[in-house]
Amino acid sequence: MDIQVRQAIDSDLPAIHGLVRELAVYERAEEEFIATLEEYQRDFSAGVFQAKVAESEGKVVGMALYFMNYSTWKGKMLYLEDFVVSQDWRGKGIGHKLFDAFLEEGRKQGCRLVKWQVLDWNEPALNFLPAIPGHYRKRVVDGKLFL
Amino acid sequence: MDIQVRQAIDSDLPAIHGLVRELAVYERAEEEFIATLEEYQRDFSAGVFQAKVAESEGKVVGMALYFMNYSTWKGKMLYLEDFVVSQDWRGKGIGHKLFDAFLEEGRKQGCRLVKWQVLDWNEPALNFLPAIPGHYRKRVVDGKLFL
Repeated sequence: MDIQVRQAIDSDLPAIHGLVRELAVYERAEEEFIATLEEYQRDFSAGVFQAKVAESEGKVVGMALYFMNYSTWKGKMLYLEDFVVSQDWRGKGIGHKLFDAFLEEGRKQGCRLVKWQVLDWNEPALNFLPAIPGHYRKRVVDGKLFL
Repeated sequence: MDIQVRQAIDSDLPAIHGLVRELAVYERAEEEFIATLEEYQRDFSAGVFQAKVAESEGKVVGMALYFMNYSTWKGKMLYLEDFVVSQDWRGKGIGHKLFDAFLEEGRKQGCRLVKWQVLDWNEPALNFLPAIPGHYRKRVVDGKLFL
């Protein structure tokens, strides 16, 4: 199996949007997925987010989507917003390749740290990351408000 | 008491950095506050973050620091990273003025929603926001890794 991880470009956005939909359907929450492909295209062009994609024989089978965050205590911090490997491609180490590419990107962008967030009942996601020195967790309450 | 809330500019960064330090000292965690004023100046100039400041007679007495985030499900989302009112100025409605200015900024920047996060034991912060329709919360585990 030949998997390439590379920087996402405009033409990957339909595949990225499709992976997000796949996960929303799997979680039985498709109605909560309201961002359109056109919005992805506009916001990606404006530099609001970036992504790494994992490709096999020209097909995008996974992605890690991220953008810059700022910690008032620690400074520049790359934030991993979403991270999906297509159902049939799981268990092959693709997630780890994407996560490594994300860490490398954080270093390249001059960040002191990276951040991600998982729902507190999501055991597989909580267990994904091996115990790396310096990795720490906090329980937080995440608040959102529609404008 | 005359309080003005306005967009932060370069020359407010020493006051903003000072407010972050004040809170770190109050939380007995000053050693965890490692971002320097020079880093704030470099990153603010690069557009990594923005802030609103509350000013009284030319003195900055509070601030709300934010930047753009992206939700793969909802699209553009303004994130409130830090929010401080100086000790002697609390209980005067300054926090609400800053929060309102933050919401207004989210609308101006074309966001569908705003987000913030508090530690799950921080009751005063959890109780700050009144029950606004559309406001919802999730318990999450926040992971960070030093690079």
